[in-house]
Amino acid sequence: MADPLNDAALGQIFLEARTHNSWQDKPVSDDTLRQLVDMLKMGPTSANCSPARFTFVKSADAKERLLKHVSEGNQKKTHAAPVTAIVAYDLEFYENLPKLFPHTDAKSWFTGSETAIQETAFRNGSLQGAYMIVAARALGLDAGPMSGFNRDGVDQEFFAGTPLRSNFLCNLGYGDPAGVYDRAPRLSFDEMADIV
Amino acid sequence: MADPLNDAALGQIFLEARTHNSWQDKPVSDDTLRQLVDMLKMGPTSANCSPARFTFVKSADAKERLLKHVSEGNQKKTHAAPVTAIVAYDLEFYENLPKLFPHTDAKSWFTGSETAIQETAFRNGSLQGAYMIVAARALGLDAGPMSGFNRDGVDQEFFAGTPLRSNFLCNLGYGDPAGVYDRAPRLSFDEMADIV
Repeated sequence: MADPLNDAALGQIFLEARTHNSWQDKPVSDDTLRQLVDMLKMGPTSANCSPARFTFVKSADAKERLLKHVSEGNQKKTHAAPVTAIVAYDLEFYENLPKLFPHTDAKSWFTGSETAIQETAFRNGSLQGAYMIVAARALGLDAGPMSGFNRDGVDQEFFAGTPLRSNFLCNLGYGDPAGVYDRAPRLSFDEMADIV
Repeated sequence: MADPLNDAALGQIFLEARTHNSWQDKPVSDDTLRQLVDMLKMGPTSANCSPARFTFVKSADAKERLLKHVSEGNQKKTHAAPVTAIVAYDLEFYENLPKLFPHTDAKSWFTGSETAIQETAFRNGSLQGAYMIVAARALGLDAGPMSGFNRDGVDQEFFAGTPLRSNFLCNLGYGDPAGVYDRAPRLSFDEMADIV
């Protein structure tokens, strides 16, 4: 049985962490991105199916290709961010199940079942996207997740001819606190939860 | 710019954390569940839409009602867990947007658009479910998320006549390390990520 993390750590990953919109001119190393993936991939997914795929857009050329498909309001910050992650999921994730979940034939749960494939990829790919956001903060990075982009455009640009589909984007880097908005209100416990 | 959390903290929330299947006979207080919600709700969602709803099943009566709809293989551990969270999402989440995202008319993005509603609720409700798992570990709890249950049955049993839909279940409590399975393999960096 573990103790709670200390207040500074709880603040860093949840209570004080904020979505960032302005970015310091400070790169994120490839080693840090590898450490980020090594952490997030340990988060649980159903039958260890691990459907999320991460394209870390770092180069100026790749950033230009991405920006064509990003909403107006997200352009400036995405241009400034040292890295933008395309959080995607693989609709053929079940091909890896003999390796990822070797003790039973989990691949057969999905073969030919489009609804189960789509739902499992989207649910668990989203869980892994959330693990990425929290893992980034735990590693001292700031995150700026975004849904405002043309999904089909990004898929054509980066994933044409593959079973990968984009889910959301997330700027990563070292944020400038001056660009953070006021904290938006949250629901109360009773509005979002119940103990029965 | 924050430092990375120390190794013990990174271990507790990701690197050493494990899905639990056996539970100590030790209750989880309502105060702890409230603290859990206070943390997870600070995680980001698109336009702060916050669609997840959490039903913490604690009483013997409610647990029996839930167990009727849980897969055979998940019965024993769910019975033993002091709390099972039904992680759900609210298909009428957009009704809260005037309060949650007051500076623009975000509610109008969703009114009458079933696809946008379903997709946004499922994506962001899943993100919040992942925040719950990591926040639980950060608070010293153990988690055991599960997809093996009858979704329609749970929705009829707990959410009949409401716009809430179950997403996944998650046992919460203080795990018995003896019940943890061997760590399943994960994909390599190159199998799940790319830097471009």
